[in-house]
Amino acid sequence: MNYFSSDFKLGILGGGQLGKMLLTETRKFDIQTYVLDPSDEAPCKTGSNRFFKGDLMDHDTVYDFGKQVDVLTLEIEHVNVEALEKLENEELKVYPSAATLRLIQNKGKQKDFYKANNIPTADYQRFATLSDLKQAAENNEVAMPFVWKSSQFGYDGNGVKVIRSAESFNGLPEGECIAEAMIPFKNELAVIVARNPSGEIKTYPVVEMEFHPEANQVEYVICPARIDEAVAAKARRIALEVSEKFNHVGLLAVEMFQTEDDEILVNEVAPRPHNSGHYSIEASYTSQFEQHIRAILNLPLGNTASKAAGIMVNLVGAEGYSGNVVYQNIESILGKSGVTPHIYGKKQTRPFRKMGHVTIVHEDINEARKVAEEVKETIKVISIPQTPGGGIQKPDNI
Amino acid sequence: MNYFSSDFKLGILGGGQLGKMLLTETRKFDIQTYVLDPSDEAPCKTGSNRFFKGDLMDHDTVYDFGKQVDVLTLEIEHVNVEALEKLENEELKVYPSAATLRLIQNKGKQKDFYKANNIPTADYQRFATLSDLKQAAENNEVAMPFVWKSSQFGYDGNGVKVIRSAESFNGLPEGECIAEAMIPFKNELAVIVARNPSGEIKTYPVVEMEFHPEANQVEYVICPARIDEAVAAKARRIALEVSEKFNHVGLLAVEMFQTEDDEILVNEVAPRPHNSGHYSIEASYTSQFEQHIRAILNLPLGNTASKAAGIMVNLVGAEGYSGNVVYQNIESILGKSGVTPHIYGKKQTRPFRKMGHVTIVHEDINEARKVAEEVKETIKVISIPQTPGGGIQKPDNI
Repeated sequence: MNYFSSDFKLGILGGGQLGKMLLTETRKFDIQTYVLDPSDEAPCKTGSNRFFKGDLMDHDTVYDFGKQVDVLTLEIEHVNVEALEKLENEELKVYPSAATLRLIQNKGKQKDFYKANNIPTADYQRFATLSDLKQAAENNEVAMPFVWKSSQFGYDGNGVKVIRSAESFNGLPEGECIAEAMIPFKNELAVIVARNPSGEIKTYPVVEMEFHPEANQVEYVICPARIDEAVAAKARRIALEVSEKFNHVGLLAVEMFQTEDDEILVNEVAPRPHNSGHYSIEASYTSQFEQHIRAILNLPLGNTASKAAGIMVNLVGAEGYSGNVVYQNIESILGKSGVTPHIYGKKQTRPFRKMGHVTIVHEDINEARKVAEEVKETIKVISIPQTPGGGIQKPDNI
Repeated sequence: MNYFSSDFKLGILGGGQLGKMLLTETRKFDIQTYVLDPSDEAPCKTGSNRFFKGDLMDHDTVYDFGKQVDVLTLEIEHVNVEALEKLENEELKVYPSAATLRLIQNKGKQKDFYKANNIPTADYQRFATLSDLKQAAENNEVAMPFVWKSSQFGYDGNGVKVIRSAESFNGLPEGECIAEAMIPFKNELAVIVARNPSGEIKTYPVVEMEFHPEANQVEYVICPARIDEAVAAKARRIALEVSEKFNHVGLLAVEMFQTEDDEILVNEVAPRPHNSGHYSIEASYTSQFEQHIRAILNLPLGNTASKAAGIMVNLVGAEGYSGNVVYQNIESILGKSGVTPHIYGKKQTRPFRKMGHVTIVHEDINEARKVAEEVKETIKVISIPQTPGGGIQKPDNI
């Protein structure tokens, strides 16, 4: 198959930052892309060969879009799966497959899948409704504390809550959910697996999510993880197994816990490029985005090793600021060696909105970690205050 | 100044492959770009925020384009300099400056500039016409063999010829030219210098152009050059000096000869990202394209050191093929570790047309050199033969 500078068309469902970083690679290879996204201001509007505005959950929109391309992939899981099934039945190559998406879109089914395939994961129980879970808790069939997770559409920590008493249920949605055992863990790890239709499979090194000691928010993604080699090898082996069991094509990001006794438990997966792999753009021989393109087009996979240590810091909107974005002190972080900001191109910031990320690359991981902290403390994603007269007043030190 | 996700507009004259690789960086930083190029099929048509079709040598076209942007740069030197002068007089920031372009566009003036500034360069004489040069040769005022160079618009080896006898003049254009002493050299080297308006200045490591032993064509650009450290230090020092004397802003690629007695002679310069710096996308902490953007926007310059050894192989159209391009055996080169093809997005190949390049990155430069040779011998830029019936017949082993 001739993908390069040809009539071949790759379709991408979703036009956000992950799509934008995929487009860097399709442009590099001169592979034509069509992108579908609900927002007219999507980051992929520039850089795609054709951009379509439309609802990713609408059957006909997704189906009609799929009929125009030769291979279909996605950068977000929340898409109409029935449309993908129909397209697959009509012989379109869809990666990840509709079957994988069905499993992943429902956290209960995802957990059942791990259990059925002997993949280590935290104990859990499934409930059709929140009321059923409450009843079970009342009857002591579920022991507190535990972790409530919405089965559908959890994203970036939404749809997850620790339940310590009956009061914790307040405000939770009524829908299908799971109750998961709380796991005391040393580290949260992730491994990205790439697999192509021919079955060639490779894992990236294990990365470590370092949390803020108080805020319980991921602050840094660090590659390689600062863990024992034996634990790292086990994490990569388990991630490989997960990808193989899903018969997955493309990237699969496998998030895991390293328990106090060095067991590895799979938490959840994402069937696409992932925040935990952004470091790879600068630090790896093959970035995760190039690798995803290679995998879904059944090209040989690239080297997943690193050229240097890499640390990623997310740039999220600061609290108290909404409106036209300004990256305060960005010039100062550009002056630090090995620092690369990625600005996603969203014009409006909101508290905690993912607006970009910064990668720090250094021969020495400890040096990279120091610079990462400086970056984290220096740059701030704020908005331009509007003066009452309608003019724009710039904050200090832009 | 706020460049990121703002209303700021960067203008780029020229929309070829160098522009396309600049756009990778402007997209990463979400800096708005306007691009002007004469071809409706220019590689920059996708990826720029606005694309304008127009003649780069036409005064009004360039001037009108420049009036729409906040900073103006270029990816090709052959542009209307009078328009740039007018824009500068109206306070537009133009990098490289019109004055630098005037010097560089004329090889005679460029050589005079080196001489006036005590920058080592091969001896030369200037002639207003080819007839004047012929006369001088006849009178033995110029000793054969020497190198004839057209003063204007030489590009990629065009406009250069070794004159060994009166017959060598046949077919040369009549215009202004220089006669340059032939320098027996060990190596052809290049150093890219970045300088911003604040005067911050950095050099990239010295690269070496390795020539095919018979065809006298550059086959590999190798970073770092396999030369003595003292010679490398001298080459970087001289390149710095050239950039400072030009008071240059942006990138300046300085091409040099290393003579048999390890003297460094400046051959010529290019005031923009350059073929000799393509390796930097994968091998350097800061790619030359990101560095150019940083420099012209007066941002801090990035680290110019390398993460690994890098070798670049140009992908040029094979002889005997014209038409819709096919990259034969590209899948096979993707299977080699550390290999990244860049496909420029030109739909039509022609013999010797620059269609792309391949970078090979490896910890060990000797390993990288071996893989580079495999790449060179494997991939072939050909065209799809048209069958008489109008259908398309694919060549073997695509």
